[in-house]
Amino acid sequence: MAGKDDVKALVFDVFGTVVDWRASCIRELSAFGRGRGITGVDWAAFADDWRGLYQPSMEEVRSGRRGYVTLDQLHGENLATLLQQYGVQKLADHEIEHLVTIWHRLAPWPDSVEGLYRLKRRYILGTLSNGNIGLMTRLAKHGGLPWDAILGAEIAQNYKPVAEVYLRSAAALTLEPHECMMVAAHNGDLAAARELDLRTAFILRPTEHGPGQTTDTAASQAWDIVTDSFHGLADALGCPRF
Amino acid sequence: MAGKDDVKALVFDVFGTVVDWRASCIRELSAFGRGRGITGVDWAAFADDWRGLYQPSMEEVRSGRRGYVTLDQLHGENLATLLQQYGVQKLADHEIEHLVTIWHRLAPWPDSVEGLYRLKRRYILGTLSNGNIGLMTRLAKHGGLPWDAILGAEIAQNYKPVAEVYLRSAAALTLEPHECMMVAAHNGDLAAARELDLRTAFILRPTEHGPGQTTDTAASQAWDIVTDSFHGLADALGCPRF
Repeated sequence: MAGKDDVKALVFDVFGTVVDWRASCIRELSAFGRGRGITGVDWAAFADDWRGLYQPSMEEVRSGRRGYVTLDQLHGENLATLLQQYGVQKLADHEIEHLVTIWHRLAPWPDSVEGLYRLKRRYILGTLSNGNIGLMTRLAKHGGLPWDAILGAEIAQNYKPVAEVYLRSAAALTLEPHECMMVAAHNGDLAAARELDLRTAFILRPTEHGPGQTTDTAASQAWDIVTDSFHGLADALGCPRF
Repeated sequence: MAGKDDVKALVFDVFGTVVDWRASCIRELSAFGRGRGITGVDWAAFADDWRGLYQPSMEEVRSGRRGYVTLDQLHGENLATLLQQYGVQKLADHEIEHLVTIWHRLAPWPDSVEGLYRLKRRYILGTLSNGNIGLMTRLAKHGGLPWDAILGAEIAQNYKPVAEVYLRSAAALTLEPHECMMVAAHNGDLAAARELDLRTAFILRPTEHGPGQTTDTAASQAWDIVTDSFHGLADALGCPRF
């Protein structure tokens, strides 16, 4: 593997790669709906639609049409759009807040936490996510994710796959891009990272989008590492099991 | 204590408050001198002089005479000044690097790590230090400091006690200043934080500057908490012992 020995830090995509956002969203939305007596809403479709508004809303910032705002804010705006679209009305402020912060309470994939602890003994572990610092910090506390540093969108004031987000994250660790390995379940994220000379690890998460997933079901390039769990990543990097 | 119940995050000064920079510096400098066969240098004085150049070098940035550069860089520049002043010559690049990164390997005070683990169960723990992200990250890995987020100077691109450093750190956690408590061994740091409506905790570290310390030997205002260890802080905040 080219230059693997130079890697000092692993930088992680989080939504889909480290945590199972979809199952967590559906579970929390459904529980909220039941508790609130809301009927006739397909919460799985709601969750998918919420995630579906993610890229277009970030594109406003990436394109320069809008200044940087946090993902918490975009989640809130997109939620408002969907609540109206699905006919869910008259929620109190604390209920809205409860829903927006579902993204702070996503469950890690079963291998994530133990795998991260194996990797942490040898590498600096940073987030390189589009989530803002406050969101990522709370998500880490909720799931027990042992990050050494929260990097990514907020420190660059822009959104992946804009180059600055990767480059500022490496620079914040006072590392060269080739000393960082991007870990992601998404080929597009890895392609952007490789273009900038980061090393790359693809983690197959074949149910991120549910049982019928059609995207990112295989590596689209010969990434430096291709595996299906953080244990596989730790094995490939020679990190011992506990 | 005014508003203590609103506090969601504890934000920490690090050099002197969490780690014993002076004893660590003297130990490493002395070991380096012995190994290199350098004689006639008072390494305790060297350490104090190195720290002595800290404030004036940051003042160049705070005053606007110089753009933001990292503390790693300032440590390197100040080291070069002192090596010349003390007549230590002809060091190799890797030796210079070894000396600059002494600041990545400072030992925590004996109560720091266990106290932080107690506090971490109830609060978000962030650094609000003048150290840059790369420095703080390595220092945390070296000492086992369980931060949830690395905040402070680099995300604000300026140095304490400039207001922006405190305000940007609180904002990065999506918290109001009064929801953050500044923890420091330095009255000046707490005064700046209080001015901005952060809560304040003074940790007495009477030997930070060695046995003859004359500064910060007592609280200069009625801070929200005044104690002499992180266990005292955890007790005052009602965090159970393990």
